[in-house]
Amino acid sequence: MTDAAQTEPAPRRRRSGGRAGNSARRGGVVIEQMPWNPPVMIDPPVEPLSPESVEAMHDAAMRILEDIGIVFLNEEALEIFREAGCSVSDDGIVRMGRDWVMEMIAKAPSEFTLTPRNPDRQITIGGRHLTFGNVSSPPNYFDLEIGKKVSGTREQCANLLKLTQYFNCIHFAGGYPVEPVDIHASIRHLDVVYDKLTLTDKVMHAYSLGKERVEDVMEMVRIAGGLSHEDFEATPRMYTNINSTSPLKHDQPMIDGCLRCIRRGQAVVVTPFTLAGAMAPVTMPGAVAQSLAEGLAAIALFQYVRPGAPCVIGTFTSNVDMKSGAPAFGTPEYMRATQMTGQMARFYGLPMRSSGVCAANVPDGQAMWETSNSLWAALQSQTNMVYHAAGWLEGGLIASPEKFIMDCEVLQHIQRYLDPALTRTEEDDLALDAIAEVGHNGHFFGIQHTQDRYTTAFYQPFLSDWKNFEAWEVAGGIWTAERAHHMFKEIIGAFEAPPMDAAIREELEAFVARRKAEGGAPTDF
Amino acid sequence: MTDAAQTEPAPRRRRSGGRAGNSARRGGVVIEQMPWNPPVMIDPPVEPLSPESVEAMHDAAMRILEDIGIVFLNEEALEIFREAGCSVSDDGIVRMGRDWVMEMIAKAPSEFTLTPRNPDRQITIGGRHLTFGNVSSPPNYFDLEIGKKVSGTREQCANLLKLTQYFNCIHFAGGYPVEPVDIHASIRHLDVVYDKLTLTDKVMHAYSLGKERVEDVMEMVRIAGGLSHEDFEATPRMYTNINSTSPLKHDQPMIDGCLRCIRRGQAVVVTPFTLAGAMAPVTMPGAVAQSLAEGLAAIALFQYVRPGAPCVIGTFTSNVDMKSGAPAFGTPEYMRATQMTGQMARFYGLPMRSSGVCAANVPDGQAMWETSNSLWAALQSQTNMVYHAAGWLEGGLIASPEKFIMDCEVLQHIQRYLDPALTRTEEDDLALDAIAEVGHNGHFFGIQHTQDRYTTAFYQPFLSDWKNFEAWEVAGGIWTAERAHHMFKEIIGAFEAPPMDAAIREELEAFVARRKAEGGAPTDF
Repeated sequence: MTDAAQTEPAPRRRRSGGRAGNSARRGGVVIEQMPWNPPVMIDPPVEPLSPESVEAMHDAAMRILEDIGIVFLNEEALEIFREAGCSVSDDGIVRMGRDWVMEMIAKAPSEFTLTPRNPDRQITIGGRHLTFGNVSSPPNYFDLEIGKKVSGTREQCANLLKLTQYFNCIHFAGGYPVEPVDIHASIRHLDVVYDKLTLTDKVMHAYSLGKERVEDVMEMVRIAGGLSHEDFEATPRMYTNINSTSPLKHDQPMIDGCLRCIRRGQAVVVTPFTLAGAMAPVTMPGAVAQSLAEGLAAIALFQYVRPGAPCVIGTFTSNVDMKSGAPAFGTPEYMRATQMTGQMARFYGLPMRSSGVCAANVPDGQAMWETSNSLWAALQSQTNMVYHAAGWLEGGLIASPEKFIMDCEVLQHIQRYLDPALTRTEEDDLALDAIAEVGHNGHFFGIQHTQDRYTTAFYQPFLSDWKNFEAWEVAGGIWTAERAHHMFKEIIGAFEAPPMDAAIREELEAFVARRKAEGGAPTDF
Repeated sequence: MTDAAQTEPAPRRRRSGGRAGNSARRGGVVIEQMPWNPPVMIDPPVEPLSPESVEAMHDAAMRILEDIGIVFLNEEALEIFREAGCSVSDDGIVRMGRDWVMEMIAKAPSEFTLTPRNPDRQITIGGRHLTFGNVSSPPNYFDLEIGKKVSGTREQCANLLKLTQYFNCIHFAGGYPVEPVDIHASIRHLDVVYDKLTLTDKVMHAYSLGKERVEDVMEMVRIAGGLSHEDFEATPRMYTNINSTSPLKHDQPMIDGCLRCIRRGQAVVVTPFTLAGAMAPVTMPGAVAQSLAEGLAAIALFQYVRPGAPCVIGTFTSNVDMKSGAPAFGTPEYMRATQMTGQMARFYGLPMRSSGVCAANVPDGQAMWETSNSLWAALQSQTNMVYHAAGWLEGGLIASPEKFIMDCEVLQHIQRYLDPALTRTEEDDLALDAIAEVGHNGHFFGIQHTQDRYTTAFYQPFLSDWKNFEAWEVAGGIWTAERAHHMFKEIIGAFEAPPMDAAIREELEAFVARRKAEGGAPTDF
């Protein structure tokens, strides 16, 4: 596909027709990719815990909540916990009984939808549904042309958003794909969410970093969807994701943002950041137990405030390099922790979030074995939302467009792997007639059974180069990361934004201008 | 580890002590690697076929054997099939009833051992035992210093054998890790098997390419083990691997070699090479059914000749690129075909072989996602012997030492992933006391629970670089493949061969000299 991309005529640009449903047909045709089709996980998950171990893990999480407690640095939350009958100490430690926790958790839906401005991009979170989101929040950027690690800019952020929109295997737009530090923090959310809403039509996210930011994003998502306030609140349109401050603590703005979201019917993802050996026990089951306790404490609060609020329990349990303290990702320990968390998420009836992660600094072999490990672990754990599924490097400190494109190839692998047709055993699949027809001396290239199926029988990669060495060498002998770089340039060059009503765009612009004039959001939280 | 390897004092060289059991302590200490410990697969396999689909697949394989038949281009085999009551046509097509096939297959052991000259390197094939072997049989070689694809040489072959011996995660020595085309084909097996037997002490393989080669290798393995003929035949010491000539054909030397091996108690692996869309149906279940039929036909023959002979059913079912006809590897189709074959191997009670494979031409990102896919599919299918687990490029046409070392990192991941300690939920693993001790404001680095475990709690990579970008850049900014190249040079520089009795070495040398004087093996087969 690489050389095809290099020799094909310039990508076609087409005028758009109606609004909904056209996204898939729009945009420059740089590569042949799989259609928009969020996969369903058809295999049983990998479950490393025995039933007794599930009970032991649950008991450990409950003992943490009952005996050790979780600190909530949020006065409103403490007041709610008191009202609910939980024990709240003077220093903000909340201890809650397992019966109450389980009663609250049981109110959470095991499955819900998120509906962005383009309703054709609606995704289902929970059950056996699998969705992928872009890399979120790295402060830095790397690409092969720049050749080094640099601070993120709005332009880089926009380019990564274009990739987010372009690739059908990316189902939701997570946080900023790179932090645009060239925009002042007080108005950054206004500019980037404007870019996100105009460059993509996929599910949106708000950072819970102060009430103004959360409220602004909700309002912008409402405007972009052309929705009344009532319509906006009628079903989840977007989500926020928070991390606990491990060990055993939730901070003020994160909980505040979640409360604002759930009160307007939007979704929250609670993702403890429990690096085993640093902010959590050095034993992976201990780190998972702590992560579960931190996540369940917040979700119980949210269910008390708004029963049935759409909540996702996340995992970010990995280990550190005990030589340097540096975080490690995509390790065997990471995989098992993710699988254990998934098993417990199903025990609690909650949708699950995990990530596509690596410690590698550049988009090379290590980056791919680490990321591949984490992405397959997402599937094995029956994860519903895969954060950072494309574009992450250096433990999340770097976003890379080459890595983004390389990861999308792996995501398409997973999507294709989940096609039940691959293992169907109807008479035509078992192909006895074809085998008899070819017999003992022929080949299958030309026969009708092959002709009828060859265009769709096999996964077609867009980045993998399947040429033999000599043909690959003649085509320039280009290694994968560099092929991805060329593809990045072509995709950006040919990119067309999804359609947006002119009146809606003007309303969005006016909102951004007004909020900028008001000073945006405070930056001293 | 990379910079440690660059700054550490020169690798120590030690004198060897006794013969058995010292291998792990010998050899240059270039990296810290996991000990010799062939893993046990603790998870249930991934089983894409329903019970009804298993029956349908079995029925398809049996219908191929009963109605379409398999050609055996081997007079002796045809005579045996006739004697067994199978239908043998004038053009060598053997048709066999399913009752007879299943009766024969039932005689095969589901598990057996292979014992090389160092009995500490004995491996178990079957059940939940997982073993990895080096890349086998590429005619070409690539490394970063040469920078291009070149024909294999004896020196390159020897270097790859040194890697085979050096890495504890490589459990058996497969075929020649690269074909040394600088040695005349008539005596190549003598020189390379001499190198294999002196540079490694792991399980040996013989190519079934003419009776002289097979007999010579068996004799050399017997000599190297210091065994009488009776002792050699008492238990499997080595194995041969054959491919069918798909579709539906077994050739003369392959079957001949297997018959020679099983008659002397040695093991055989039967691996049809069924590329879907080329030598097999374009549908993966059809390709698997054909592969099973080809494999079972040969194994039924071997069980008739020697009931209980150690046999392994292999899979090499993948797809081709329908644009070019080029083989593709590590694809979603490959993964599912491997899983389906594993499921059927368990149905038949046979040990299973699959591979670590990729289509990539260089050790880059694509190489690692393709190889990683195939290696995890080996685990998911409950494969017992993973051929080509390290060092393979370009669909098996190139052997690469950098790729070998990169793959060994992934193999160690798998080995660590299978450590039950990672998901154990005893009280100390759940670490409630540690969580209570650290509370809400500390960290886990310094506490006793961490101190007691930190050296072994987490997988320690030897090739992955977990430094942050800045430290990685200061250390040279070296991408994975280049780090692997440096490591290759160091391992070869520090390599020490495993001990071998001087008298045994002399006997081996004399055998090689005599057989060379006799002209080796004919090359016109």
